[in-house]
Amino acid sequence: MNQIPQDNQGPVDVVIMAAGKGTRMKSRLPKVLHRLAGRALLGHVTDTAARIGARHVVVVTGHGAAEVEAAMSGSAIGAALQFARQEPQLGTGHAVQQAVPLLPDDGTVLVLSGDVPLIGEETLRALIAASAGRRLALLTIEFDDPSGYGRIVRAEGQAAGEVMAIVEQKDATEAQRGIREIYSGVMAVPAALLKGWLARLDNRNAQGEYYLTDIVKLAAADGVPVVAHVIADALQVAGINSPAQLAALERAWQLRQADALMAQGVRLADPARFDLRGALACEADVEIDVNCVFEGSVFLGEGVRIGANCVIANARIEAGAVIHPFTHIDGEKAGVTVGERSLVGPFARLRPGAQLGTEVHIGNFVEVKNSTLAEGAKANHLAYLGDASVGRRVNYGAGSITANYDGANKHRTVIEDDVHVGSNCVLVAPVTIGAGGTIGGGSTVNKSTEPGALTVARGKQVSFANWKRPQKQPKA
Amino acid sequence: MNQIPQDNQGPVDVVIMAAGKGTRMKSRLPKVLHRLAGRALLGHVTDTAARIGARHVVVVTGHGAAEVEAAMSGSAIGAALQFARQEPQLGTGHAVQQAVPLLPDDGTVLVLSGDVPLIGEETLRALIAASAGRRLALLTIEFDDPSGYGRIVRAEGQAAGEVMAIVEQKDATEAQRGIREIYSGVMAVPAALLKGWLARLDNRNAQGEYYLTDIVKLAAADGVPVVAHVIADALQVAGINSPAQLAALERAWQLRQADALMAQGVRLADPARFDLRGALACEADVEIDVNCVFEGSVFLGEGVRIGANCVIANARIEAGAVIHPFTHIDGEKAGVTVGERSLVGPFARLRPGAQLGTEVHIGNFVEVKNSTLAEGAKANHLAYLGDASVGRRVNYGAGSITANYDGANKHRTVIEDDVHVGSNCVLVAPVTIGAGGTIGGGSTVNKSTEPGALTVARGKQVSFANWKRPQKQPKA
Amino acid sequence: MNQIPQDNQGPVDVVIMAAGKGTRMKSRLPKVLHRLAGRALLGHVTDTAARIGARHVVVVTGHGAAEVEAAMSGSAIGAALQFARQEPQLGTGHAVQQAVPLLPDDGTVLVLSGDVPLIGEETLRALIAASAGRRLALLTIEFDDPSGYGRIVRAEGQAAGEVMAIVEQKDATEAQRGIREIYSGVMAVPAALLKGWLARLDNRNAQGEYYLTDIVKLAAADGVPVVAHVIADALQVAGINSPAQLAALERAWQLRQADALMAQGVRLADPARFDLRGALACEADVEIDVNCVFEGSVFLGEGVRIGANCVIANARIEAGAVIHPFTHIDGEKAGVTVGERSLVGPFARLRPGAQLGTEVHIGNFVEVKNSTLAEGAKANHLAYLGDASVGRRVNYGAGSITANYDGANKHRTVIEDDVHVGSNCVLVAPVTIGAGGTIGGGSTVNKSTEPGALTVARGKQVSFANWKRPQKQPKA
Repeated sequence: MNQIPQDNQGPVDVVIMAAGKGTRMKSRLPKVLHRLAGRALLGHVTDTAARIGARHVVVVTGHGAAEVEAAMSGSAIGAALQFARQEPQLGTGHAVQQAVPLLPDDGTVLVLSGDVPLIGEETLRALIAASAGRRLALLTIEFDDPSGYGRIVRAEGQAAGEVMAIVEQKDATEAQRGIREIYSGVMAVPAALLKGWLARLDNRNAQGEYYLTDIVKLAAADGVPVVAHVIADALQVAGINSPAQLAALERAWQLRQADALMAQGVRLADPARFDLRGALACEADVEIDVNCVFEGSVFLGEGVRIGANCVIANARIEAGAVIHPFTHIDGEKAGVTVGERSLVGPFARLRPGAQLGTEVHIGNFVEVKNSTLAEGAKANHLAYLGDASVGRRVNYGAGSITANYDGANKHRTVIEDDVHVGSNCVLVAPVTIGAGGTIGGGSTVNKSTEPGALTVARGKQVSFANWKRPQKQPKA
Repeated sequence: MNQIPQDNQGPVDVVIMAAGKGTRMKSRLPKVLHRLAGRALLGHVTDTAARIGARHVVVVTGHGAAEVEAAMSGSAIGAALQFARQEPQLGTGHAVQQAVPLLPDDGTVLVLSGDVPLIGEETLRALIAASAGRRLALLTIEFDDPSGYGRIVRAEGQAAGEVMAIVEQKDATEAQRGIREIYSGVMAVPAALLKGWLARLDNRNAQGEYYLTDIVKLAAADGVPVVAHVIADALQVAGINSPAQLAALERAWQLRQADALMAQGVRLADPARFDLRGALACEADVEIDVNCVFEGSVFLGEGVRIGANCVIANARIEAGAVIHPFTHIDGEKAGVTVGERSLVGPFARLRPGAQLGTEVHIGNFVEVKNSTLAEGAKANHLAYLGDASVGRRVNYGAGSITANYDGANKHRTVIEDDVHVGSNCVLVAPVTIGAGGTIGGGSTVNKSTEPGALTVARGKQVSFANWKRPQKQPKA
Repeated sequence: MNQIPQDNQGPVDVVIMAAGKGTRMKSRLPKVLHRLAGRALLGHVTDTAARIGARHVVVVTGHGAAEVEAAMSGSAIGAALQFARQEPQLGTGHAVQQAVPLLPDDGTVLVLSGDVPLIGEETLRALIAASAGRRLALLTIEFDDPSGYGRIVRAEGQAAGEVMAIVEQKDATEAQRGIREIYSGVMAVPAALLKGWLARLDNRNAQGEYYLTDIVKLAAADGVPVVAHVIADALQVAGINSPAQLAALERAWQLRQADALMAQGVRLADPARFDLRGALACEADVEIDVNCVFEGSVFLGEGVRIGANCVIANARIEAGAVIHPFTHIDGEKAGVTVGERSLVGPFARLRPGAQLGTEVHIGNFVEVKNSTLAEGAKANHLAYLGDASVGRRVNYGAGSITANYDGANKHRTVIEDDVHVGSNCVLVAPVTIGAGGTIGGGSTVNKSTEPGALTVARGKQVSFANWKRPQKQPKA
């Protein structure tokens, strides 16, 4: 018999089942790479493993193994992550058999599922504590309709007592089918015990598979206690088998995120029309109107207001800024900053490297990319600023464009403080507009200008009286 | 007594009740022309009639008859469609009386309602089979709250047995009011029987109307069996009497469409924020973000991703293309095509005849109409392409415009392969920019250019030092 | 004992409790200034007070008193509004004690809460009638779960009978906890009686506070009848204590507004995605697509259609106009008018003072501010019209801009009837384009032009053959 550590679970090692095909997803993407709240299902689970301080994390791959392994290679948990391939797939017990050779004997093994993304950190800590280095601990939950799930059979008369067996639906007696407590698929078990039991599994059943749940009876046979840790939160053990289930869990998760933000004081105009795919940090008195989507890492300073129908990703929006409706911000890796009390939108787009200072105004149909705008600069109408440095109090006219790309290379435009750029200008980079200068409307400027100068580059206005307009041609 | 065909329903003819005013709609539009999922209620019903292979379809019109008839004249079911006017409206029996002279004696008559749009094809086939050319078959459903509906009274002790009567709410006994099975308004009946019964209807009732449901007792009197075909799906028999009911049925229908798409593998970020008004065909691994609307006929190829808040109509979007948020596509009759791996949006608009090849990029605040863009062409910022042919790898600069309209006629612009059009240019059609040419920023080009040439059309840049800006004028 | 007026409630004076901090809002804004449907909670209550013809309205302020008083100073109810500060806050009775010195003895006092925004006018009239100038009338409601609320204890065997006491949760017997009728916090009471009772309140309780509800037992002691007016509509007495409650009440209220509009005949594509923050007046056959937001005062004429995802504020949209998706209209104080059968959007923005005549077309990426457009004028693509007067049938070209701002002052542009402005033009205000004139594409016009003239202002087109494009520079 295996050595059983006493009341000390030791390090925690995690096995994540991720070999399934997910036929009902009807997708070429392996099931565990489908995304919930913008992140792969499996990524949710590995992140949770990292947060509980897992020593080793072994992902058991099978269907789409190479794709899953490639997708996870950049995972935040780094070196702790290993893969074990299960080919062919001969059951859940067989899956864990592939993983355990990578795990030491001195830890507690936590078995998770790659398609059960929202398992909670605290739940896992409690389950590990229930295992206590010497027990098999099963995570269970009561369902109003337990049909199809493995029922938890407890010792007679002991509602919270020791678990005797997990009975599958098809094997259950009428009385057992009345049991509402079911096994969630998550367990914690000392590695040494697990390894011994896995070696004794057989596949003498209708499916010819090795079932991990069969270790419950082996534990009983060995006199090792089997305990259940019951939770009430069904979201944590919800698995994904179809696009409909994925959508349902997405909405449930989004509502939960909305509730958490509201509890912090964020005002959401409609929690059912709010999507967060990443991390949103909010200071006091933030207001978010209907139908906004946040992605990546977003910070909203005190009193920031986000208008209806905005999509905002990877951005830092400082206190008092107002983002009007229909604004699209995506900082990608370079990030976007919107300075204090700036006004952006409606119909504005801020792209990577847009860095707006204090009280900058970006208006409708304006795109800003890889550009800095200093305090008080304004680009209010139909304009493009790319690879530009814009000084303080600059007024950048409607329809003006920085021609930053010569067809081969990108160049910078420098617009110094207090410049006034007229309407429909083209600033052909590299070019510098000296401080306080003025560019006449409709000018194409390809030579740098002196401070304080008025620069124009346009044709003389000429008129031809009594001009005959083209006439409507008859159709052939 | 009429001759009763035996177990052979013969051809199917359809009568659609569409004479009602729909007072609670509070609209000048006849009720049956109100739209569900973008199509007139009556259009849903005539399409279903066509799908079951109806020989004749007679729409009984009354209120707004001329408008209803005009609206349906272009109906897909074509010559099969006829109209019978019911003026004045003297009850449901009277309505069918107007229609039957247009129908032969050898068919089965299916009575449908123009304001019950979602009746299912399979349901109707089953009902016709239940009629079997010799029975009166009623479509029924059980409601938790049957108040106000006509109850189905069956022969004693025969839950699935023969129907004895339809009893109206006001005439029902206490026991009968407890009956939860109600008549849906849909029936199938051999034409010969129907005609005989209709001739025997009277209007000796409180309302002084001829009730179609009175034929049940005439059938009983004649010894013709009356059977009920019960369905469980309330959506199929839901009628529309008010804008609130229309909105509720719209949402129910949209959710059902969303479910059907998800079952095929389409990933919807929020099934409750998805609208399909027409037909959406999706290949594998399509993802659709929140709050998108699809209209007309739309095809999405494998792996297509549609961002949040898009409106897409009459378009074909090929595999691997990405449509960013806030994109508006409407191909109307000419259609729109987005080629494989193309990127469109955010804030892009594709109009009829926009034909994008492979890996084309259309960026923010760009409008494309009746133009072809060949492989690798790009128009990324604030631009208009109308009536243009754009070659491969063309880079069409920010703010540039094809001036396709001379105030009277539209002309084409041809931009050959590898052209680089600078920023804020105007290409005055008809004009051709030769392959590999370059147009300097800010140029207005109204003469065609040679391949490989650099063309500029702009004023010389001049500066005036120490220019005095206009000063703020004091208010009067 | 006070004099009791008989069956004549006299004038109505209102006391609004608005001193609370609202800790769970987690906000620097005083709770009663949080907004529901775009208006401060307290503003809803003062407006309702005004609608029932309140003679005096005393708002009891405390936390954030100065901010609350400042925010309400422009209130529509004007001179009737007074403030009484409650500092420190010693309970609800103490709050009303601060207010009553401002009220005459001859009225009925209605006690409302500043954080219960949706109390109904008819409910209050009925409550005042129940008070009848001689009774203490309590507004009550039955809750399925009354936990935490003060229970209404009625005289034995009198379900609708006189109220004996309000018993707080913590003081309630087991039987009393079973009572589902609770006190809403709203009461009507003759001022003379109220003043006497308030003077007799004490704070001998666990919290050391003066409770307004203690007047029930004083009334009983004085033999003054206490009656309950029960309502069924929980929304009217719902209070706001957290952002989640605010969001929930916002959605409930929005659904109610949607229902009311649908009952009038407005067709909403999705009542759950409709937001009205202000007043929306609709003529017949208005259709509003999904996810639209209305603010301020908006009028929609007969047959107006509003596309998906529009934000519309302070605007008048005349009959037959169509607003395409993604349109942003905000008239602020100056207002916006869209003329009959005009077409606006998608991606259009109408700002204050945009006045569109009949059959005007405003297309994508077009901004209009403080400008009039006469019948049949069109600006269809990527354009800016600011401080302009645009004549009939004018065609304003793609990319064209009115340069209305010289860096210091704004000037007007006048475009007379039948002018054709080419693409990417700049009209430098002040300037007038004479009737029937044409402006060539790419022109910058800063001198007024004669009627009928063709005006161009651009450089000559020159080409340089075999031009060598810049080459991609190797990265450093």
